[in-house]
Amino acid sequence: MDRIYFDNAATTPLDPLVLESMMPYLTEKFGNPSSIYSYGRETRMAIENARKSVAKILNARPAEIFFTSGGTESSNTAINAAVYDLSCKRIITSPLEHHATLHCAEYINKIGIVEISYVKILSNGHIDITDLERLLEESKEKCLVTLMHANNEIGNITDIEAVGNLCKKYNAIFHSDTVQTVGHYNFDLRKLPVHFITGASHKFHGPKGVGILYINENIKIHPFINGGSQERNMRAGTENLYGIVGFAKALELATANHETDREYISNIKSYMQKKLRGNIANVYFNGDYDGKSLYTVLSVAFPKTEKSEMLLFNLDINNICASGGSACSSGADAGSHVIRAISNDLNQITVRFSFSKYNTKEEVDLVVEKLKGMI
Amino acid sequence: MDRIYFDNAATTPLDPLVLESMMPYLTEKFGNPSSIYSYGRETRMAIENARKSVAKILNARPAEIFFTSGGTESSNTAINAAVYDLSCKRIITSPLEHHATLHCAEYINKIGIVEISYVKILSNGHIDITDLERLLEESKEKCLVTLMHANNEIGNITDIEAVGNLCKKYNAIFHSDTVQTVGHYNFDLRKLPVHFITGASHKFHGPKGVGILYINENIKIHPFINGGSQERNMRAGTENLYGIVGFAKALELATANHETDREYISNIKSYMQKKLRGNIANVYFNGDYDGKSLYTVLSVAFPKTEKSEMLLFNLDINNICASGGSACSSGADAGSHVIRAISNDLNQITVRFSFSKYNTKEEVDLVVEKLKGMI
Repeated sequence: MDRIYFDNAATTPLDPLVLESMMPYLTEKFGNPSSIYSYGRETRMAIENARKSVAKILNARPAEIFFTSGGTESSNTAINAAVYDLSCKRIITSPLEHHATLHCAEYINKIGIVEISYVKILSNGHIDITDLERLLEESKEKCLVTLMHANNEIGNITDIEAVGNLCKKYNAIFHSDTVQTVGHYNFDLRKLPVHFITGASHKFHGPKGVGILYINENIKIHPFINGGSQERNMRAGTENLYGIVGFAKALELATANHETDREYISNIKSYMQKKLRGNIANVYFNGDYDGKSLYTVLSVAFPKTEKSEMLLFNLDINNICASGGSACSSGADAGSHVIRAISNDLNQITVRFSFSKYNTKEEVDLVVEKLKGMI
Repeated sequence: MDRIYFDNAATTPLDPLVLESMMPYLTEKFGNPSSIYSYGRETRMAIENARKSVAKILNARPAEIFFTSGGTESSNTAINAAVYDLSCKRIITSPLEHHATLHCAEYINKIGIVEISYVKILSNGHIDITDLERLLEESKEKCLVTLMHANNEIGNITDIEAVGNLCKKYNAIFHSDTVQTVGHYNFDLRKLPVHFITGASHKFHGPKGVGILYINENIKIHPFINGGSQERNMRAGTENLYGIVGFAKALELATANHETDREYISNIKSYMQKKLRGNIANVYFNGDYDGKSLYTVLSVAFPKTEKSEMLLFNLDINNICASGGSACSSGADAGSHVIRAISNDLNQITVRFSFSKYNTKEEVDLVVEKLKGMI
């Protein structure tokens, strides 16, 4: 059986058209974009065109888009800047954030520079927005609120416009990890009340090793990585030229057929829900799976049995790629901090299935058929 | 006239064999290296093989090699770690360092955490090692010494073994920016007394956007970029998979024919020296150009005339790529801090020519012929 790839929230295959756009910069157009002669000018132009394209799609200004080495560096930059440059003395976050946010915030907290508070989580996995307001209201210090747009494990989508408006009301800085939504949802950054958002192109069929940080034009920060004057003195280091070109192309392609792709993938997600319910007893789903939820992610709770404890292993043997939680944390092997935070049910085996436009209902049929034998 | 690329210290074209090694990871082998299933295991294996290969070539342990987004991030990681994790309260550096070092050190100094001292420079552009010892001796606090192996603008090579031994004597941490020498010179990191070195593959026909940081196994530091557990909890963020594979392949190729390439490129450098002296009056060379100097870099001081002030511009018009100094600083347009530090001669126009194995003596002839008309 051919491999079935149902782990698109971890990473996605590179779109061949994206690779095609990168190839000239992997071959003849190799100049250092900071060089002032012809080779440098042509690659500088490629980067600035990429920036313009990304800005246009997100309805931001080109000067607000900075290329980084990925979502993690982007989040680290934003959180450090909020603390060191924007005088935030308290970080308000949630226990469901990606480790790129949590570990960064916890480190700054550990070295004694900021307090850290965690907003309460409702039973459906959403943040309790009244608790967020309480935290903001009671804080005597300037706050950084860092809450992700969509949870990478359970798929829940937070109303970041509402969060942003609360931040505005209490003069807080707002950073949102939007790694699971850039390339999948429309953004209008001229309207959205947010100071920092992040993106990583390998989540939408672009290259790995490249990301963006949006920095609202009204705030001025210091670079996180110091050195040369790249990225208008905001992110030093010779640019990942082909990565940047690939990022922009991937975002263009991902957003060109947004609505069609979204409908197609949503159908796969709801089809899988239906098939699982129809074929596996006592199956349920984590988070607000048929409400405010990513159309790309379905987090399934299977009943714990002697057989199902080997579920991920058996899926792998059957050439089915899915994950227990975030790929970034698999190395740690401590289970999912997200599932622990929303569930007291130790009798579930969680598997995250996540879909792309390259998946099919036939693949769902095959996977559910195989799963029946594994529970 | 075809373009002549004499700016290999800024960046180098990707070796087609390196690109070939990257292609599988830009196409079918796309799994997230942190994923535990087949797709993830094959890419994890590629990264660990790359690490082993790099370690073997540098005679380090695989556990001492960490992949980053480039030389700048590597240097920032080392300098921050020395201050925040290894208790260094004073940074000793030189005015000739790359901005990745200087701007990082200056920033930490500015926020009031460390003192910073600059070692004296001799008239040939080498550091004054007795002054370095004086600085170390008089320091009451633990020091970080950060001195580059080879200067990217004038080519001078520092005896980092001697510096490392001094650091050992005074219990200082030693970081060396080796971006211009990794891939060009042999390293024996089991013997070299150094705590951190850096590398960037785009300086030796590998991809941009990827670097290494060597961290001596005897020191324990905290990650600079926090998040997932990649790079054994030392550098968070989904790995730049193809970049890492390309880094290792480029280093293998660059070191396979070290001696032959070195001789070939050295001959081009000395040929150009001879031709310039024979054809252009009052030309001289910056730094220790025929002593302890990179075989890849020739920094030329042309007499300042009305015509020569347009030299870089005219070289560009003639399709000749060379630079005034570091590419990373060209955006800043403030002239070279390196040339300013070693020379009081305002009547020179500096051009750095830097060579690779793809250059020829015929190109030198053409460039010198053109230069004659431009002075």
